Amino acid sequence: MGRPVQARLSPEAIADAAVALIDSGHPFGLNAVARRLGVKPPSLYNHVDGIDGIVELVRGRLAAHYLVDVDEADEEVGWDEVVEAMLRAERRMYTEHPHVLPLIATSTVRDEGVIHAYDLKATQLVRAGFPESEVLVVVQLLDAFALGSGLDYAAPDAVWEPSGPTVTLGRLLDAGPRGRERNDQAFEIGLGMLMAGLRERLAAHTAHA
Amino acid sequence: MGRPVQARLSPEAIADAAVALIDSGHPFGLNAVARRLGVKPPSLYNHVDGIDGIVELVRGRLAAHYLVDVDEADEEVGWDEVVEAMLRAERRMYTEHPHVLPLIATSTVRDEGVIHAYDLKATQLVRAGFPESEVLVVVQLLDAFALGSGLDYAAPDAVWEPSGPTVTLGRLLDAGPRGRERNDQAFEIGLGMLMAGLRERLAAHTAHA
Repeated sequence: MGRPVQARLSPEAIADAAVALIDSGHPFGLNAVARRLGVKPPSLYNHVDGIDGIVELVRGRLAAHYLVDVDEADEEVGWDEVVEAMLRAERRMYTEHPHVLPLIATSTVRDEGVIHAYDLKATQLVRAGFPESEVLVVVQLLDAFALGSGLDYAAPDAVWEPSGPTVTLGRLLDAGPRGRERNDQAFEIGLGMLMAGLRERLAAHTAHA
Repeated sequence: MGRPVQARLSPEAIADAAVALIDSGHPFGLNAVARRLGVKPPSLYNHVDGIDGIVELVRGRLAAHYLVDVDEADEEVGWDEVVEAMLRAERRMYTEHPHVLPLIATSTVRDEGVIHAYDLKATQLVRAGFPESEVLVVVQLLDAFALGSGLDYAAPDAVWEPSGPTVTLGRLLDAGPRGRERNDQAFEIGLGMLMAGLRERLAAHTAHA
């Protein structure tokens, strides 16, 4: 099994195997990734620095696929369009790979492509006029919204199942939108509020400046 | 081991053992919960309906601890105060039990106490004047924000670690608030925007009504 298989190993192949493993819902770990690739675990160390390195490859691989390429030089594109496009892309990524979310949400971002995407977002917010001390706070807030919406999307169709009488909840559940539809509506309304809130905050900042 | 240990088993004891197991970061499962309680796995089935039942006990146990008791009859308390208090409580729960979050966020809510808390939130929003078709959408949006903020809180102190030069990110990371401080600020600013957005939306609805 030695040479020919080793030759097929690459960061990309490891990332793809890891994404497939995570998506399958089976327990995630270095040994399981190696098994999926048909190699012995130590071979992986020629390409990655343990399990954290694999998580970072997964983050980079997915980000390269989902994060929109917004041209930094294009002065026509407003900061709010860039931010909104990134939020939509992030949410799409989380909804299509729900099991990935808890893994990448709780580890340090090191992947160059993802760092670049955050750098771009931060640069846009600074250029727009947000005070520098507030920019990463806003970035973190945007992330929290994307993460929460993504996690919400992974929830079952029936989020609530009352077994007894309720004052309001049961009636609304019978009448209202369900599952994905309710989820999409929540994301759209939330996104609208968030963007309006940011524009208002920016207007207040620039009025005082 | 039979009788005396069996006698100690109760939904509360199972919930406590499950919370402790999840908090420890060790793999979660029915067998592991049984091991922690010093009983054989089948004994648990006298009290719960498998692993989903245990997750539901965990949700109920934590909710009973964190979700504030707001008096429904108290006309003095505004809908926005109730909603804000619940969001703060939810976030505190998630930040103090970060590993619990992915488990309870992706399963159907059945616990009576938690259903009651959602029912109360929905009732408050209906009474406030939100259209019935929108109430659960708003509830889901609030949940997404609490979930995302909680997940964010479980993130490492260094969320981003650029290895090369950046336009903006590196400078802001050196200068700005870090870790918990940035996280708290993001939650507070986000909460403020969310509540302002909801009040505005409600005003628009009631103006048209």
